[in-house]
Amino acid sequence: MSGSRPRTVVLLSAGTELTEGITQDSHVRFLASELTSLGFRVLRGLQVPDDVELFRAELSRAVEQAGLVIVTGGLGPTSDDLSRELVAEAAGVPLDFHQEAWDAILARFAGRTVASTNRKQAMAPRGFTLLPNANGTAPGFHGPVGGACVVALPGPPSELRPMFSTGVVPVLARLFGTGGVTDVLWGTALMVPESSLEEALRSGAAGLGIQDIRWGTRVDEDRIAFSLRGGTPAGRDALFEALVSTLGQTRVRRGETRPAQLVTEALLERGARLVVAESCTGGLIAKYLTDLSGSSRVFWGGFLSYANEAKETLLGVDRRTLDEHGAVSEPVVIAMSEGARKSSGAEAAVAVSGVAGPEGGTPEKPVGTVWIAVSLKDGGSSAWRFAFSGSRDMVRRRSAVAALLAVEARLRGREFLDTRMKW
Amino acid sequence: MSGSRPRTVVLLSAGTELTEGITQDSHVRFLASELTSLGFRVLRGLQVPDDVELFRAELSRAVEQAGLVIVTGGLGPTSDDLSRELVAEAAGVPLDFHQEAWDAILARFAGRTVASTNRKQAMAPRGFTLLPNANGTAPGFHGPVGGACVVALPGPPSELRPMFSTGVVPVLARLFGTGGVTDVLWGTALMVPESSLEEALRSGAAGLGIQDIRWGTRVDEDRIAFSLRGGTPAGRDALFEALVSTLGQTRVRRGETRPAQLVTEALLERGARLVVAESCTGGLIAKYLTDLSGSSRVFWGGFLSYANEAKETLLGVDRRTLDEHGAVSEPVVIAMSEGARKSSGAEAAVAVSGVAGPEGGTPEKPVGTVWIAVSLKDGGSSAWRFAFSGSRDMVRRRSAVAALLAVEARLRGREFLDTRMKW
Repeated sequence: MSGSRPRTVVLLSAGTELTEGITQDSHVRFLASELTSLGFRVLRGLQVPDDVELFRAELSRAVEQAGLVIVTGGLGPTSDDLSRELVAEAAGVPLDFHQEAWDAILARFAGRTVASTNRKQAMAPRGFTLLPNANGTAPGFHGPVGGACVVALPGPPSELRPMFSTGVVPVLARLFGTGGVTDVLWGTALMVPESSLEEALRSGAAGLGIQDIRWGTRVDEDRIAFSLRGGTPAGRDALFEALVSTLGQTRVRRGETRPAQLVTEALLERGARLVVAESCTGGLIAKYLTDLSGSSRVFWGGFLSYANEAKETLLGVDRRTLDEHGAVSEPVVIAMSEGARKSSGAEAAVAVSGVAGPEGGTPEKPVGTVWIAVSLKDGGSSAWRFAFSGSRDMVRRRSAVAALLAVEARLRGREFLDTRMKW
Repeated sequence: MSGSRPRTVVLLSAGTELTEGITQDSHVRFLASELTSLGFRVLRGLQVPDDVELFRAELSRAVEQAGLVIVTGGLGPTSDDLSRELVAEAAGVPLDFHQEAWDAILARFAGRTVASTNRKQAMAPRGFTLLPNANGTAPGFHGPVGGACVVALPGPPSELRPMFSTGVVPVLARLFGTGGVTDVLWGTALMVPESSLEEALRSGAAGLGIQDIRWGTRVDEDRIAFSLRGGTPAGRDALFEALVSTLGQTRVRRGETRPAQLVTEALLERGARLVVAESCTGGLIAKYLTDLSGSSRVFWGGFLSYANEAKETLLGVDRRTLDEHGAVSEPVVIAMSEGARKSSGAEAAVAVSGVAGPEGGTPEKPVGTVWIAVSLKDGGSSAWRFAFSGSRDMVRRRSAVAALLAVEARLRGREFLDTRMKW
């Protein structure tokens, strides 16, 4: 096989649970994102039932069209699991038993009885290379079928994803001349629309005269993870720094991280604990923090002051301040953060009050208007006004992300970001 | 067209954002679930980029193989949006302009300037029938291509899903002899594993001698939505009642509903407001409640008493009770709920304290051990102990769902459920 095969790929997810709508296929999205950032063109994603005829037809069509075919699922021990047999059939080779794979399976069962049907999981098409599974029983494998490279991966995402990164990426680098795992710079973009990140990458690369670095992005609920691949290490660093200078250091970070992770690290360094006072976010800031196991070291707790009465009772916000300025205002959100800090004794407090919608907007405070305040024991209080766009759900998520990053900026003694960029 | 065409379907989701892994395709799963429960066999799901050659090839292959082809996405106003043109090409007909569709688009823009490219959205293949879009600009359409029926639906889920239920299901009933919207009983299952629901449906149908009712399930974060289709109305009712008697009325509900919706309705009926005291759920109960717009009518607010210190300071839980019984215990969770109710003045309170994991488990209180207490102004306090299974994320979600349903049961004066069923 050469390093110059066509960088085209068909992704085939096997399983009747996918075509009956019982399970959501997530492999096509994950692999499409990774492969696009490696420079592949995805011709199509497919969900195919555990049916010999249908599976065979899609597999044979895929290997005729694409340089790479990735089959996911169908590697279990039952007769429904067809991937092993059908890949061998397409390659025109028998299945071979691999003693070392069987030993690994037995070791995983650690003395418990292993059904003989599991022996099937130690088989692979002759001439194919096994991909060890660090997180489950079935190994994957890869090998040639006609002019294509076929890779088979197990269905559980916790097994598939590490196997792809550690096992498949180096194989692709060798066969397709794509970058390896060491030729990538990972980063995280926060509080920025994907289109602005894309534009900043494009103009950054143009400004530096860089043409050999490709980028990929993955949008999650609270951040965009991005990768810069190819080129030289110095070129990737230069492009990353160009991003920072365009979007600011609050919005662009090295490595894959999350807002809750960033604030947790800053709190740990300061030995501080955080208290939250949430109104329109209704518990979401706390949820993000406590999604991380061990958050009790930095998260004191907080107040869900949803109703105005709760803002008065729990946080001591003055009724006249509420009447005069409204709940969504700088004086109220500052009073909320200070009330939360004082009644808890925590070193840091963050408060949010806003109009998440879809109801409740006014001409002065349209849906998406959100005030955020941070109060530090030794550093006083600051507040910012945002105008977020999107649905109720998006306004709430954006508010929670901004609140976490505002705390981080204050703890690190750094300017928080310019709030004018539309997000 | 006749009522006896083959009930086979290919689902084609169009969009380069899907094949570059930027967006997760959710249409294949949704439509596969709906169509399976209507008696269709899904031959495959597909994600195809906005590329004329690739899209054309998949569409022409699909119409040769299946009785029904559903194309989603690609109905926007830009040149990337190919569905309209390629379906017309496959049918061998031109595109016609529909004045009534254009009027509906103009009405939606309500006086704002409409780009002339939007006129494209009022076009459909000649001889095809428009499907009005109650929630967006682009109408869908359906019509014959060779021996197949092709349906085109817009990409946003908020537009596609209602259009499928109200527009497409009656067309399928006519063309394929599948049940219509009136031949279905919708229900919701709560706090029950999918396998137990499946088993209860199977044994219920067997016990009643029912063979002509099909069911479909869709697992969401906080519930399972299910449908019973076919048979007679009396048969569907009998099967539903069999489910209730097996799983209990807390776990089985008529219609599509959610835990937060059920407790909101019960609170509105009683004119009561709820306060929450969340420990391991860390804001998730509040998040579920405030996901619903207008929740301020029933949600007072609450306390995030994550650290033990917060349980003392915010809720007045006695230090000795904490030391003697531990934070995850009946006396502590009852004290939390009563503390929350008294310091807020709300009529109802719910408190949760548990071990979400992955750390913090002990032999007496393993990961998944969760105490929930409800305190009512005029009704005293009750508590339940659960042993939830699954990851940290699942334990937290299950705890939040159970907490909401415990409040609903107490407000309605009903026994809460048997906590022994494994979930």
